[in-house]
Amino acid sequence: MSNNRIGLFGFGVVGESLYRVLQQTPSLQSEIVKVAIRHPEKKRKAPTQLFTTRADELLHDESIQTIVELIDDAEAAFEIVSTALRNGKSVVSANKKMIARHLPELLRIQKESGGSLLYEAAACASIPVIRNLEEYYDNDLLQGIQGIVNGSTNYILSKVSCEQISFEEALTDAQIAGFAESDPSLDLNGTDAANKLCILLAHAYGILAAPEQLSYTGIQALHEQDAVFAREKGWAIKLVAAAKKVTDGKVAAYVLPQFVTDRHLLHTVRDEYNGVVIESGLAEQQFFYGKGAGGIATASAVLSDLSALRYDYRYAYKKLNSHERAVLSMDVFLRVYVSFDGLFQVPHELFERIEEWSSNDKRCSVVGIIHGSRLAQSDWWKQPGTSLILYPEPVVPPELLRKEPVERELVFV
Amino acid sequence: MSNNRIGLFGFGVVGESLYRVLQQTPSLQSEIVKVAIRHPEKKRKAPTQLFTTRADELLHDESIQTIVELIDDAEAAFEIVSTALRNGKSVVSANKKMIARHLPELLRIQKESGGSLLYEAAACASIPVIRNLEEYYDNDLLQGIQGIVNGSTNYILSKVSCEQISFEEALTDAQIAGFAESDPSLDLNGTDAANKLCILLAHAYGILAAPEQLSYTGIQALHEQDAVFAREKGWAIKLVAAAKKVTDGKVAAYVLPQFVTDRHLLHTVRDEYNGVVIESGLAEQQFFYGKGAGGIATASAVLSDLSALRYDYRYAYKKLNSHERAVLSMDVFLRVYVSFDGLFQVPHELFERIEEWSSNDKRCSVVGIIHGSRLAQSDWWKQPGTSLILYPEPVVPPELLRKEPVERELVFV
Repeated sequence: MSNNRIGLFGFGVVGESLYRVLQQTPSLQSEIVKVAIRHPEKKRKAPTQLFTTRADELLHDESIQTIVELIDDAEAAFEIVSTALRNGKSVVSANKKMIARHLPELLRIQKESGGSLLYEAAACASIPVIRNLEEYYDNDLLQGIQGIVNGSTNYILSKVSCEQISFEEALTDAQIAGFAESDPSLDLNGTDAANKLCILLAHAYGILAAPEQLSYTGIQALHEQDAVFAREKGWAIKLVAAAKKVTDGKVAAYVLPQFVTDRHLLHTVRDEYNGVVIESGLAEQQFFYGKGAGGIATASAVLSDLSALRYDYRYAYKKLNSHERAVLSMDVFLRVYVSFDGLFQVPHELFERIEEWSSNDKRCSVVGIIHGSRLAQSDWWKQPGTSLILYPEPVVPPELLRKEPVERELVFV
Repeated sequence: MSNNRIGLFGFGVVGESLYRVLQQTPSLQSEIVKVAIRHPEKKRKAPTQLFTTRADELLHDESIQTIVELIDDAEAAFEIVSTALRNGKSVVSANKKMIARHLPELLRIQKESGGSLLYEAAACASIPVIRNLEEYYDNDLLQGIQGIVNGSTNYILSKVSCEQISFEEALTDAQIAGFAESDPSLDLNGTDAANKLCILLAHAYGILAAPEQLSYTGIQALHEQDAVFAREKGWAIKLVAAAKKVTDGKVAAYVLPQFVTDRHLLHTVRDEYNGVVIESGLAEQQFFYGKGAGGIATASAVLSDLSALRYDYRYAYKKLNSHERAVLSMDVFLRVYVSFDGLFQVPHELFERIEEWSSNDKRCSVVGIIHGSRLAQSDWWKQPGTSLILYPEPVVPPELLRKEPVERELVFV
């Protein structure tokens, strides 16, 4: 097999890590021969002749078989990736936002051009979750997946939980440690996790959804009182991205904060790590765990994709092409904790049942069962001063609701 | 794609589970059309015309494309699998003993016949560890793997640790719960784990080794005092199968009991579950966790192999074919705890250094550093009345040994 000549877009932390690692792994027989960058004036630890500011030098060089795209800008990335595929090149990308937004077009372009696009690094960095969902859970028995897919928020939540510091202090810590961006809003508000969930949905269930079709939020609205509530129960708060088979081929998908007990596999996922629990009707729970952020961890996933390309691997998107496609739907009852600045804010009419409520001078909270459509169809739970957290084992079987009477009025009279 | 017609050997717990599950997963388009059994007089929950006692009815039926081998007898299994491959069929097997013993021949037969043999179920049942090692860790940076790969012994060790019962009581518990065979010796003495480690070594490092080439033991010799020692330190004892890159392309491999702290990922693996930690130079620690025993979990892995066969998947054995093959060697310093019935048994001249020793009326024990060759080249540590347990983080860098003086004489004078 001859050497694979690679054109690289972007020379940030991940790009530079990849460059170094490829020099140390001759067995991959892959070489970065050109790097497209935006700022030629920056000092870089690689020979000057490697760099260019002209994308065409990579995209139209026929001796380059593979393009690796590692830039921030999602729209520019889409241009690069789609042009490269059309020009007959294989492509590896780590750009979750670009893939989540453009997957349907990327599928079409792959089909037309015959090129292969791999993006294992785009969800859970080093954890091979995409390829496992695609290759290994290819049956009708995938009950659900739940994962911690954003390292920054998990780092913050771990600090708040273990060191009992405030959310603000924890964010500053995360920024100092390099686990949160200087503008951390896409991490904090759940958008990054929602992008990744969109990618996982395609490979787990053959569902093509844009992030805004999912019910999602982040940890930006969590209140110190919520952390106190969790600590008193001996629970941790995690930002969980989940997809769950409900009935009749429907799959509920969301990104929400969730309380987890110390018996939950996701409880072991600390700091900047990621973890995904896959529930299969046959194998019960399986768990994948690894580094979810950082240049080297991401480069490691890119490397595996490069290795797979040498053997002509491509995603088959089996579930997209299967006879029974799943449909996105929040047709599920969830047990939630919601806390509010004031009691008057509680929309108790939206709940099927309210099981507990409490208030003190700072904050009031309720625990109750709510139908997923109440989250999907309106934004009351994302208003300032409101935080919603799923209870442990949040999905409530509908039978259970029918059996017991609704006690809402009793509580609130 | 037309239906895959399957011939099944064996209709025990796994075979019957597979039969049921295939009926529930039409998307796999796979059907068991004939089952070869040994005891036709047994009552079975499937139509009588499905069964035969004549292997040839499956092996020579050209309409059967795939053979699934799920019998106990390793030598008979090898006959079945090799004949099926030679007859141009694809084969799925779960027989770890057969694969560990016959892998070199099976590789040759696959090459000659062009057939594909898959055996994900043979190591860690439901955890897709073989395919991940084969496909995903295809680089020079795999530092090591360590796993709990035997469900029976882990169940027993969990019971001893959590419920503070004796090893004997725990074994009886495991047998009642169906997690230990009526003859549990192959599990207890580490042979089953060693078989699985041989399979993992082939896919992780391209090393073809027979179990007896590995340094291994089980939990059969552990003493109640060892469990007390672990509890006092807040540690658990696990039976760990490990392979570790040492220097110059050498890989040390062993199956030994090990103390693990509650910060170790393997500490979370309880009862009959299995877990594998993969250490990569890039991704640091990754962790795979899932059910390692039981009919359904094993059937789930068989199912995934069947699904992979539909897409003509075969193991590429990339590392076997790579330019730099690793070599098995116990050239590694290990920190171990060894306990003995009597002080006179302690072979202190074999240790590089003894760091602690203690004795009471029941038992004496030492903690020290020993070179792996002292385990590989003799059996003193497997004698009756002796138990050896690795310390947490057992591998000691040679630099550390050189820096500090050997204090053995001081302690024993």
